[in-house]
Formats: sequence, structure tokens, C-alpha cells
Amino acid sequence: MERLKQEIRENGEVRDGNILKVDNFLNHMLDVELLNDMGKEFYRLFKDEGITKILTIEVSGIAIAAIAAQYFKVPVVFAKKVESQNLDKELYTSKVFSFTKNREYIIRVSKKYLNEADKLLVIDDFLADGNAMKGLISLAEQSGAEVKGIGIVIEKGFLDGGKELREANYNLQSLAIVDEMHQGEIRFRE
Amino acid sequence: MERLKQEIRENGEVRDGNILKVDNFLNHMLDVELLNDMGKEFYRLFKDEGITKILTIEVSGIAIAAIAAQYFKVPVVFAKKVESQNLDKELYTSKVFSFTKNREYIIRVSKKYLNEADKLLVIDDFLADGNAMKGLISLAEQSGAEVKGIGIVIEKGFLDGGKELREANYNLQSLAIVDEMHQGEIRFRE
Repeated sequence: MERLKQEIRENGEVRDGNILKVDNFLNHMLDVELLNDMGKEFYRLFKDEGITKILTIEVSGIAIAAIAAQYFKVPVVFAKKVESQNLDKELYTSKVFSFTKNREYIIRVSKKYLNEADKLLVIDDFLADGNAMKGLISLAEQSGAEVKGIGIVIEKGFLDGGKELREANYNLQSLAIVDEMHQGEIRFRE
Repeated sequence: MERLKQEIRENGEVRDGNILKVDNFLNHMLDVELLNDMGKEFYRLFKDEGITKILTIEVSGIAIAAIAAQYFKVPVVFAKKVESQNLDKELYTSKVFSFTKNREYIIRVSKKYLNEADKLLVIDDFLADGNAMKGLISLAEQSGAEVKGIGIVIEKGFLDGGKELREANYNLQSLAIVDEMHQGEIRFRE
């Protein structure tokens, strides 16, 4: 998506530890018009997959998942990272190791909201090592749902997440793939 | 909003500690069509206020804020609860005491994303004691922005948050106000 790449070029900040900070349109302030264009693009890419639900993970996947869901006319389910006493007791859970934060955390979805009849589009803001995405796929598999597509806003193409998911034959589509990034320079895959 | 009230009546679960669980359309699974109706209603209520940004707080405010923002054609800024090494150093911060969780936490917004020219609509999913909302208002005030409206999905009318904000002359509009709730019975304000 050209407009997304332009936004990343103009406003993305590269930081130590393979961090690409896009707080001004995706992770702190939301450019809702751009999110809408992304949502439409996900719809174009996955509209023939019979999607019944969009699965994402809190926090930064929620806005783009909700906006995209309007085009698919399906509900969004977001996996939770934070333990809550209000959550159902019957849960699908998965452990995720975050390289950015250097710690393991547990993601959860209530068993009520995913089932074997579901054909899922799994959406997230970033794909790096793919650990969060593999956790989401595990939640889907536990429920018997089928992952019909994976939609990513920004893939860090220099890490292995995308490669592994494509080799495992997932229909993974990233709106921008960053193949190299240094302070002041970001190179996208064509 | 009649459809929202009906949804709460049919699917809301009342739990100990004044908890109203609406996981099946607002807090875990998102009914995006209903969110859209809410977004339109917020637009109808606040469209003449010259809103320049919608301010909300992670996690559950994000989806409804993003959907509503499409009608106002303005960006969303969401305050962060979780400390992150990637956040800017220049922040507006505010302490919030959560009765539900019985602990204090800090909410933060980067100084980049709020300023004195902003006319804000502050949106959240729930209003109970009003502590989170007062924290958001404090962030707005620190930046010099003006709070032109407060839009709430579900107000717990039996707690004092709404009363205090109305007495302080905020333009607070709640799509549903629950005046009483017990297992199996929820009474709304007319």
C-alpha cells in the first residue's frame, strides 16, 4: 500500500532493538482515514475467503480489526494479554515470548467466542518474529476454527515470522514489508 | 439507545462488585454493526462542537472511538496504561484509582498528540466512579485542549461519576444509563 509506505517513510522512527515507532498513525494516535484504506485493502485481499470473524490481539490490533470488520460485516474477537478477574473461566490460552519486551506472556480467548464453524482472518499491526501470530493461530486451532487469512499492517521482513508463516502455507498478506531499516532510511520489499 | 439497552438486557451479566460484563459485544467480542450505530449516535450528539480529536483510553475505548472518528473525520488519541520503553519521554500523565481493580495506575499521552488548539470528544466504554474519565480530562487540561464533550457507552448511574461530571458542567452523554442492576434484572434510566 503506497500511502502506508509513505506514512512510514515520513513519520516512522527507527529505534534500537529493531523497533519501528509509528505512534502518529497506528500505535498511539490513529489516522482513521488511513485505517479505513487499510481495512478496504484487507477486504479486497480476503473477501473470497468466507470470513466469519476477525481475530486480533490487544492493544494495537483492535482499531484496524474493527475498521476492517465493517467491510466484512463480521464481529471482531480480541485476545487478551492482561489477566482479569472478569474473564470467563473457560479459555483457550497460549504462551507468547516477546523479544521486544524480553518476557513471556499468556494470551487468552473465551471459548464462547471461537468455534469450529469459524473461518478466521487474523489481523495484527506488526509481524516480527511471528510469536504473537503463532499464539493467535494456536488459539484458533484449539477452538477448531480455520485460519483463512492473516492480514498484517507492517511486516519486518528481515525477521523470520513472515517467512515461516508463508512456508507453512498460511495466506499471509502484509500491507507493507520493511526489508531493511536504519535511522533515516527504511527500505520496503517491492 | 434502544438497541444497546436491548443488547445489555439480553447479554449483560451482572457480577459481584458492580461489574456488568458485556464481553459479547463490547469488551472481548466486538459487534461492529452495533459499534457503528453508537458511533453515528455520538456524531449526532456532538457534531456541532467543532471536535478536532477523539481522546480515549486503552483497551476497550479504542474500538468505539475509532469507529466514531470516521463520522467526525478526526484522529483518535488513546491514553496508555501500560508503561512502554518505546513511549516518548515528553508525556502528560495522570494517576487513576481503579475501584474494580483496587489499585492505582498511571495513564499517559505523548505531548505530541494533544495541544491547546484541540477541541476534544472524550469517549470511553464505561463510566462508573469517573476516575478514569477525570484522569483523561486532566491529560486534556495539561495540554491546554478543551473538552467539548464526553461520550460514554454505558454509565453506571448508581455511582457518582456521571453526577459529578454533569455538576461540573461537562457535556456528558451516555448511550445507556444503568440505574440499578442485580442478577437477572437491569433497570435503565429513562
